[in-house]
Amino acid sequence: MASASQPNAGSQGCWWWLLKDLPEKTKNKVVNVAGKANKLGRDEPRRIIHCLKVGLALTLVSLLYYVHPLYKFFHESGVWAVLTVLLVLEFTVGGTLGRGLNRTFATLLGGALGVGAQHLAALSGEIGQPIVLGLCVMVLTAAVTFLRFFPEMKARYDYGLIILMLTFSMVSVSGYRDEDALTIAYERLLTIIVGCVIALLVSILICPVWVGEDLQRLIAANLEKLGSFLEGFSGAYCRISGDAQITIDQSFLQGYKSVLTSKHSEETMVNLARWEPGHGRFLFRHPWKQYLKVGTLARQCSYKIEILSGHLASEIEAAQEIRGEIQESCREMTRESGKALKELAATIRTMTRSTSMDFHIENSKGAAKNLMSLLETGLLEDSTTLLEIIPAVAVASTVMDIVTCTERISDAVKELASLAHFKSTISPVVTPEEP
Amino acid sequence: MASASQPNAGSQGCWWWLLKDLPEKTKNKVVNVAGKANKLGRDEPRRIIHCLKVGLALTLVSLLYYVHPLYKFFHESGVWAVLTVLLVLEFTVGGTLGRGLNRTFATLLGGALGVGAQHLAALSGEIGQPIVLGLCVMVLTAAVTFLRFFPEMKARYDYGLIILMLTFSMVSVSGYRDEDALTIAYERLLTIIVGCVIALLVSILICPVWVGEDLQRLIAANLEKLGSFLEGFSGAYCRISGDAQITIDQSFLQGYKSVLTSKHSEETMVNLARWEPGHGRFLFRHPWKQYLKVGTLARQCSYKIEILSGHLASEIEAAQEIRGEIQESCREMTRESGKALKELAATIRTMTRSTSMDFHIENSKGAAKNLMSLLETGLLEDSTTLLEIIPAVAVASTVMDIVTCTERISDAVKELASLAHFKSTISPVVTPEEP
Repeated sequence: MASASQPNAGSQGCWWWLLKDLPEKTKNKVVNVAGKANKLGRDEPRRIIHCLKVGLALTLVSLLYYVHPLYKFFHESGVWAVLTVLLVLEFTVGGTLGRGLNRTFATLLGGALGVGAQHLAALSGEIGQPIVLGLCVMVLTAAVTFLRFFPEMKARYDYGLIILMLTFSMVSVSGYRDEDALTIAYERLLTIIVGCVIALLVSILICPVWVGEDLQRLIAANLEKLGSFLEGFSGAYCRISGDAQITIDQSFLQGYKSVLTSKHSEETMVNLARWEPGHGRFLFRHPWKQYLKVGTLARQCSYKIEILSGHLASEIEAAQEIRGEIQESCREMTRESGKALKELAATIRTMTRSTSMDFHIENSKGAAKNLMSLLETGLLEDSTTLLEIIPAVAVASTVMDIVTCTERISDAVKELASLAHFKSTISPVVTPEEP
Repeated sequence: MASASQPNAGSQGCWWWLLKDLPEKTKNKVVNVAGKANKLGRDEPRRIIHCLKVGLALTLVSLLYYVHPLYKFFHESGVWAVLTVLLVLEFTVGGTLGRGLNRTFATLLGGALGVGAQHLAALSGEIGQPIVLGLCVMVLTAAVTFLRFFPEMKARYDYGLIILMLTFSMVSVSGYRDEDALTIAYERLLTIIVGCVIALLVSILICPVWVGEDLQRLIAANLEKLGSFLEGFSGAYCRISGDAQITIDQSFLQGYKSVLTSKHSEETMVNLARWEPGHGRFLFRHPWKQYLKVGTLARQCSYKIEILSGHLASEIEAAQEIRGEIQESCREMTRESGKALKELAATIRTMTRSTSMDFHIENSKGAAKNLMSLLETGLLEDSTTLLEIIPAVAVASTVMDIVTCTERISDAVKELASLAHFKSTISPVVTPEEP
C-alpha cells in the first residue's frame, strides 16, 4: 500500500492517470480503498471466485427472460427466479443450502396456507371476504413473528419464517384481486425452485466453499494461535529474566486475541455446517457440536492467556532468585502445553489421530508436579518479601491453570476424533522443530 | 412450568382438554414449548407488542389491495409494499430505519442504473441487446457482491447492497420484455416508499423500541453484573476463611459470564443505534462508539473476574495466617471496586454525573496501596512454604489488576458523560446498602 500511493510506470500506470487530476484527498481515499480491496482479495481469493459465481448464476437465470421458449413458459414470474438466485446464493454451500431449503419449504407452506385462507374467505361473502383475509394475515404474521424470537428458530429457520409470512400475505392478499390464488402460489413455487436449483448447482459445482471445512480450519487455527502464544511466552519469559534489554518479537502476543471473541462466528458456522450434505471426509451428521465444545474450551484457555500476557507486561520486578527457581518449570510447562495445542490443531486439521500430544501433556503435567514439589519444599529466604515473589507466583498459578485447561482441550479433541472417526496412524505426526 | 405439567381446574382448564388425548410425549413437548413461549413473552413483553405491530402494519398495507381507489392507483405492484413492510419492520426503530433507508436508496440507485443499462442495450441492436444486458448484470452483481465483503459495508449497508442488485437485475432484465423499464422502476420505488413509511410510522408511533436505549441498558447491566460479582466475592472470600462450612449463595458467580461474550451484540446494537434520530435525552450523533469503548473495558475486566472466580473454587488450602493478612485488603478492594462499578452503571443508566464512584475508587486504590506496603514490609515466617501462599498471592494479584481496570472503566465512563452531556447533580446518587 505504501508503494501504491506513489505513481510508478509499472502495472499501475494504466489506471494512475485516471486519478491524476483529482484533488489530493480524493486521490488518497481512492488509493486507500483500492488497497483494502486488494487485501480482501489476496487474503481470501475465494471471495473473488464467489463474486464471479454470483454473476454467472444471475446470467444463467436471466436466460428465463432472454430465451423465448423459456419466457413463454415462465412469463413475468421469471423475475422470482432472479430474486431467488440473488437471495439464496451465499458464500458457503451450507449457507446456500440452508437458505434454499428454507425458501422452498416456506414458499410451499405459505402458498398452501394462503390458498386455504382464500377459500375460507370466499365462504364469507363479498363484504366478509376482505375482513376474514385481513384477520388471517394479521394472526399468522403476528404468530410467525413471535416464533422468530425463539433462539432455536432464529438460528436455523429465520429466513424460512420471513418467507412464510411473505408468501402467505402475497398469495392471500393479491389473490383477492387476481382470483386465481392457486396459480400465483404455483408459479411462485416453481420459479423459486428453479432459482434455488441454479444457485445450488453453481454453489456446489464451481469451487465449492464448505463451511464445515472452514469451521474445522478456524478451530484448528485458534488452537494453533494459543499454542504459538505459549511457545512464544516460554521463550520471552526466559529471555526477560536472562537479559531485560533484549527486545522480544511480540507478534505472538496479538494472535490469540481473536480467540477471545470467536464465539459468535463459531456458532454461526456450526449452524450453517449442519445444512451441508456429506462430502469428502465429512459424513452427514458430522459431530459439529463437538467442534463448538472444543472452541469453548479454547476460549476459556484464552482468558487465562490474556492474564498471562498481562503478566509479561507487568512492571513489578520479581526477586531474581525466586524467578530463577520457578522460571524453568514455567518455561517447560508453557512450551510443552504450546506443543500439545499445536499437535491438537494438527489432529483436527488433518483429521488424523495422533498420540504425540499425550507425550507433551505428560511432560507439562510432570513439570507442574515438579513445580508443586519445589513450592512445597523450597522455603523462602528470610530476606524475601511477599511483594518480590508476587509476579513469579502469579505466573506460576496461571500457567498451572493453563496446563489443566490444555488437558481438558485434549480430552475434547479425542472425543471429537472418536465421534468423527478420524484416521489412525501408527507413526506420530511430525512435531515442528523447536525454534 | 412444573405446575403447567399437571392439569388443574384453573385458567389452564380451557386448553388442557385439547391435549388430553395426545400421547404423553407429544403432550410434554407441547407443554414445554408453551412454557418457553410464556417465558419469552414475560421476559420481554415488548416482543408481544412487536408481533401485534407487524400484524397491524400488514393489515394497513393490505388496504392498498382491498380499497378500490388505492388498488386502481397501485395495481399489482402493491404487492411490493406488502413485502417491504414485512422485510423492513424490525424489532427496533434503528433496525427499521436502517433497513428502510437502505431499501429506498438502493431501489432508487438500482432502478436508475437499470434504466441506464436498458438504454445502453437498446443502442446495440436486437441481437446485441441481451448480450449487453447480460454483461451489465454480471459485472454489476459481481462488483456489488465484492463490496459486501468490506467489513464497513457489511455492518451498515449489507441489505442495501442486496436490494441494489435485486432492483438492477429486475429492472434491466424484465425491462427487456416489458419495454417500459422506467415504469417498473418508478412503480417499484413508489410502493417501496409507501411500505417503508407505513413500517416506520408503526415502528416509531406505537411503543417504539429504541435500540440506543437498549444498548445503554446493556452496558449498564454489564457493569452492574461485574459489580455484583465483586461484592459477592468480597463476602464469600471472607466467609470461606472464617468458617469453611458455611454454604455460600453462588448465584452471583454466574451473572458476569454473559459479559465475556457480549462483543457481537454490542457491536450490532451500536450499528443500529447510529441510524436512530435524536429522541428524548439522546441527541443525534450521540457518542455511541464510546459505549463500545466502555463495553470493551468491561469485557477485559470480566476476563480477570473469570480468573478470580476460578480461585474461589480452587482446592489448594492457603496457610491461614497468610490469608488473614492479605484477605482484609482484598475484601476491601473487591467491595469498593464493586461499589464503584455499580455507581458507574447507575451513572450510565440515569445519564447523571455522580462523584461518589471516585470515593469508592479512591478507597480501593488506598486498600491496594495498603496491601502493597503490607507485602513489602511483611516478611514471611520461616516455616511458610511457597505452595501455601500461592492461592492468596494469586488472588491478591488478580484483585489489584481489577482495581486498575475499574479505574480505567471509570475514566471511559467520565469521557462518555462529557461527550453525551450527562446531567450534573450536586447530591451524590444513593449507594445501595451493604447486605
